[in-house]
Amino acid sequence: MTGTMTSPTTSTPRASVREVGLRDGLQSIARTLPTPIKLQWLRAAHAAGLREVEVGSFVPPRLLPQLADTAELVREALALPGLTVSVLVPNLKGAERAIESGAHAMLLPLSASHAHSLANLRKAPDDVVREIGEIRRLRDASSSASGSRCLLEVGMSTAFGCTIQGGVEPEEVLRLLRAVLEAGAERVGLADTVGYADPRQVRELFERAFEVAGEFGEGRLACGHFHDTRGLGLANVFAAWEAGVRRFDACTGGIGGCPHAPGASGNVATEDVAYLLASMGVDTGLDFDALMALRTSVAGWLEGEPLHGHIWRAGLPKTMRTAPAREAA
Amino acid sequence: MTGTMTSPTTSTPRASVREVGLRDGLQSIARTLPTPIKLQWLRAAHAAGLREVEVGSFVPPRLLPQLADTAELVREALALPGLTVSVLVPNLKGAERAIESGAHAMLLPLSASHAHSLANLRKAPDDVVREIGEIRRLRDASSSASGSRCLLEVGMSTAFGCTIQGGVEPEEVLRLLRAVLEAGAERVGLADTVGYADPRQVRELFERAFEVAGEFGEGRLACGHFHDTRGLGLANVFAAWEAGVRRFDACTGGIGGCPHAPGASGNVATEDVAYLLASMGVDTGLDFDALMALRTSVAGWLEGEPLHGHIWRAGLPKTMRTAPAREAA
Repeated sequence: MTGTMTSPTTSTPRASVREVGLRDGLQSIARTLPTPIKLQWLRAAHAAGLREVEVGSFVPPRLLPQLADTAELVREALALPGLTVSVLVPNLKGAERAIESGAHAMLLPLSASHAHSLANLRKAPDDVVREIGEIRRLRDASSSASGSRCLLEVGMSTAFGCTIQGGVEPEEVLRLLRAVLEAGAERVGLADTVGYADPRQVRELFERAFEVAGEFGEGRLACGHFHDTRGLGLANVFAAWEAGVRRFDACTGGIGGCPHAPGASGNVATEDVAYLLASMGVDTGLDFDALMALRTSVAGWLEGEPLHGHIWRAGLPKTMRTAPAREAA
Repeated sequence: MTGTMTSPTTSTPRASVREVGLRDGLQSIARTLPTPIKLQWLRAAHAAGLREVEVGSFVPPRLLPQLADTAELVREALALPGLTVSVLVPNLKGAERAIESGAHAMLLPLSASHAHSLANLRKAPDDVVREIGEIRRLRDASSSASGSRCLLEVGMSTAFGCTIQGGVEPEEVLRLLRAVLEAGAERVGLADTVGYADPRQVRELFERAFEVAGEFGEGRLACGHFHDTRGLGLANVFAAWEAGVRRFDACTGGIGGCPHAPGASGNVATEDVAYLLASMGVDTGLDFDALMALRTSVAGWLEGEPLHGHIWRAGLPKTMRTAPAREAA
């Protein structure tokens, strides 16, 4: 990964990063960024090579005023070439709005932790499974009408542990994984929502999850979502990579924090994940200099909000500098 | 890892952490900590379960005044039960002093990067190999006289890259590994001195290095030393663990910084490495609460100096809390 794009070959391993700062990051921050600022963020992310952005969430504005402009962001994002526009939806109603908005993909969170599910959604995980079925039917009916399809993804929250109940049994995660795929989810990701995962656990759970998902076809298990609360974010990304994960969520500047640990890190930082993948020789299509510039912009827009990550401060190693490539061009 | 020690079984994986904050950390910090403070650090580290501490370096005091009290620290450290007392030695003269001091082990750094070797030691790596042979002969002669043996370890600096020359060829690292073992090194570690390593590279190099070292007997390749300059420190520790490394260097609070990147992280933090290993179910004998208390002390002793790491701010996950064990006791 350099200022200019390296030339991928058929044997170059590939991965993609989904930017979730506009949703997972901003929903944890009290202030509301003005829509024009969010659009700058969106366009800069696209310019930096990010090809999937979670632009917001279709939850009622009274619950998350910071994300009330999601429909407008979707509209603007759809104009960016080659960008997959994703939104979070908490339920059937949100799914309706997502389909209406023209978003390419919608992500429904399901808590693998029973306690977390009840506390956050006031539903048991299996209730959410049933809702996934309803959303799938709604989506299919809407597709036949409009001709375009909003991809249905489920994000399995607290897949590696929960602040309320502590441990989450791997068998329960796998049971729910199978259930959501049977109910009609097209893609599923595992999320370490509270930063409890360790890389050994990540590798084992993803390996087992790939076996389950494989029964439903290729590419079903399609995302790793990691928080860096306890510093294991990138170790977990690496472990997931080793298990076969090729798509990762991240937030510019590692924003989002942790409601339980003031000042602690949030999501893994987009630029840090980009560095990790590139340093391992993985082609991500990302422009590091542009990601650094975006981080600087986000720091300005969120002045006073702690940002995280390491690569911004240290810079690229000599082995990955861009200058020689540019001089040669 | 809890406030009380878990009961290890024969199948529990084990690893050890060598605290190098008193040497690798302090040598990068301008101020000189008074010896009584260092002794507090040493004793607190021992009380927290650390069973190997690199207490200083036998370099001329005019070069590293911060470490001028190494002989006294060795003396005091030798009184702590079960503690392996290590010192860094830059050359034969330093080795003489180490043997004289009664230290259990001495570590001689060798730069895998030719450019780094010339710049830092004014010797080529193969000159250092020859010196290792001389040190081994000196050590053997001293052992027969005194009956006690100062273990000779070599730390392969810049094994994963160098700020001066950039890339370091794995074949060169392996060539030097073989050479130092042939010259008489009893243990060798690979060090990512400048925070350039990525976990894929770490895993591959250690796997290859274990093959080479295995020709010389068991346990020869015995240490991973990682810097967190670019945020990959713990990912690299995990990758090294996967390759079979069971001993890791770390600094309390991740001190040490980076001369090339002001404010950047230094060594991986002892408490963060302890957390990573424990979260993977590895028995380290470390008391997390005591490590946290030590970090707080170090922050006070080095007031104004940036400390790093994540676990101090976030705390242990619910799945690893100590309270229930104490209530049951």
